[in-house]
Amino acid sequence: MTSNTTESRVLAAIDERRSRINQAIDEELPLKTPERLYEASRYLLKAGGKRLRPTVTLLAGEALADVEPASRDYRAFPTLAGAEIDLMRAAVSLEVIQSFTLIHDDIMDDDDLRRGVPAVHNEYDTSTAILAGDTLYSSAFEIMADTGGDPANALAAMRLLSSTCTKICEGQALDIAFETRNDLLPEEYLEMVEHKTAVLYGASAAVPAELLGADDEVVEAMYQYGIESGQAFQIQDDVLDLTVPSEKLGKQRGSDLVEDKETLITLHARQQGVDVDNLLDTDSVDAVTEAEIDEAVAELEAAGSIDHAREKATELTERSKNRLSVLPDNDARGLLEDIADYLIDRGY
Amino acid sequence: MTSNTTESRVLAAIDERRSRINQAIDEELPLKTPERLYEASRYLLKAGGKRLRPTVTLLAGEALADVEPASRDYRAFPTLAGAEIDLMRAAVSLEVIQSFTLIHDDIMDDDDLRRGVPAVHNEYDTSTAILAGDTLYSSAFEIMADTGGDPANALAAMRLLSSTCTKICEGQALDIAFETRNDLLPEEYLEMVEHKTAVLYGASAAVPAELLGADDEVVEAMYQYGIESGQAFQIQDDVLDLTVPSEKLGKQRGSDLVEDKETLITLHARQQGVDVDNLLDTDSVDAVTEAEIDEAVAELEAAGSIDHAREKATELTERSKNRLSVLPDNDARGLLEDIADYLIDRGY
Repeated sequence: MTSNTTESRVLAAIDERRSRINQAIDEELPLKTPERLYEASRYLLKAGGKRLRPTVTLLAGEALADVEPASRDYRAFPTLAGAEIDLMRAAVSLEVIQSFTLIHDDIMDDDDLRRGVPAVHNEYDTSTAILAGDTLYSSAFEIMADTGGDPANALAAMRLLSSTCTKICEGQALDIAFETRNDLLPEEYLEMVEHKTAVLYGASAAVPAELLGADDEVVEAMYQYGIESGQAFQIQDDVLDLTVPSEKLGKQRGSDLVEDKETLITLHARQQGVDVDNLLDTDSVDAVTEAEIDEAVAELEAAGSIDHAREKATELTERSKNRLSVLPDNDARGLLEDIADYLIDRGY
Repeated sequence: MTSNTTESRVLAAIDERRSRINQAIDEELPLKTPERLYEASRYLLKAGGKRLRPTVTLLAGEALADVEPASRDYRAFPTLAGAEIDLMRAAVSLEVIQSFTLIHDDIMDDDDLRRGVPAVHNEYDTSTAILAGDTLYSSAFEIMADTGGDPANALAAMRLLSSTCTKICEGQALDIAFETRNDLLPEEYLEMVEHKTAVLYGASAAVPAELLGADDEVVEAMYQYGIESGQAFQIQDDVLDLTVPSEKLGKQRGSDLVEDKETLITLHARQQGVDVDNLLDTDSVDAVTEAEIDEAVAELEAAGSIDHAREKATELTERSKNRLSVLPDNDARGLLEDIADYLIDRGY
């Protein structure tokens, strides 16, 4: 379990880097011609976001280089071979990719709001949103291409970034396909989560290892750290959707259940013989009552499904933290461990 | 003017490489899970296409390496430093990027047909088409990342590919923005054409120069060859839209004019005092008559606007061919010159 101290350490680590990350985003993705295109491209990035992925990138670099957290100029960061790279560009690149995926996902899922502001296709229009996403996509590769250092390391980072993006697309396609499947297996769900959500955490942790010139097994361990903590994050998200009060959640509690969205919880419950499809009578988030949700959650609790998901998330988090043993034992590594804990025990 | 011999030489060069290119596309972009996503991603690539850009890539490599055209294994192609690279992957990557841009453009422009088959968003749906384009985008970078050879050269090719994609997005944004502009300048039109169409020809010619390890001035000359011949191609396309009979064109002659699409021809005519907005009474391709188009074209001819565009295209083509003087004087270079001629004098 995360203590308040863990959470406050993580939030402090993010806070300490956020303004530098935001400034770098502004520098690497300036408002240029055609202005409307770049306004739309920057819109979501400007609307906020925790900057968790770029923070993981910077911390992973600090842990590998064995330097005091937040003590170095990220624009001239030491590699393992004693050269210098612009680690901040890598961090920005990953945040830009995240933003691209959100813009296109919101079009596909027809979501109106994102980070408390209208989705890009609502604030502008669908064509502009498609194009803004496409622009961020190639911009992220342009930004990643110029971190400096050994070209073989930079090329490896570019290769990892591209395979990560392909996997994200595959994950989104699986997510859409699963809406019409009623024979889903828990393994398939976990694979979808890995592709759709976790690979970008994996890349955020592994790209700095590539750029700094770490050994292949270190790169792989960092990637798995991101994958497992990212999966844990998503599973915990599914748990929170059922267990955190609506007002704290900022949306209707149990909305996944109302919308028939399959999760590890519902898949486990089905295996336990729970009639998941009839847990709720309504399929409208506006019509459902708290009492109905309470009753459905009680059935899922009784089947052990919520505990099952919690245990799976905890297990993945422990595995992800163990991956970090490839790193020197230092404060930055401690913060990466804290982030893994925080991902499954963050407040709402 | 292109002779029939030039055209037949170009078509033979394309024919000679097409089946190898098609086979490589199949190998580099196999049908995998999720199947529907990869079916949609491959749909347009499978529907055909001239393979002009990948042919330019292969020919540019052959000209630089000074080898007999079509004599070498493109999968183990000699670099200038005597190493071997997979030049075919680069060719496939560029064709995959072209396919991605067409899929997203067809969504934005709401075009129903492409290469004689339904556009991807019609054959599947808009979400799948967005995602198919996104998948091709990152796949193209994955494919380009593994050509082998000197990592610095591969990284330079990746950098060029990403900046090219950003420019294509900018060009599409300008094209959309120009629909509501009535004070467009010819320079702005040419800039839009450069970004939207020509940069991908530029990249097709310059990427092999990067990968083979050519000097910067050779890379730049090859890029400009592609830019200028690509611009000439688009200008000539605008001329053909007015001058080639509908049945040969496969669509209504003058459709750009009917749809108020600004071209170098209309912009020149405006400068000559022609009332371009009232050249046609109708704005429906179905309602317009051949007699009305004839009259409008006659006015544009009288203003010298069509000749002006023809001259501009010819001038750009000559400049593009002169760029090739950086190459050894060989048969592959001759074919690249032929392609530049062919682009402005192809049959329909």
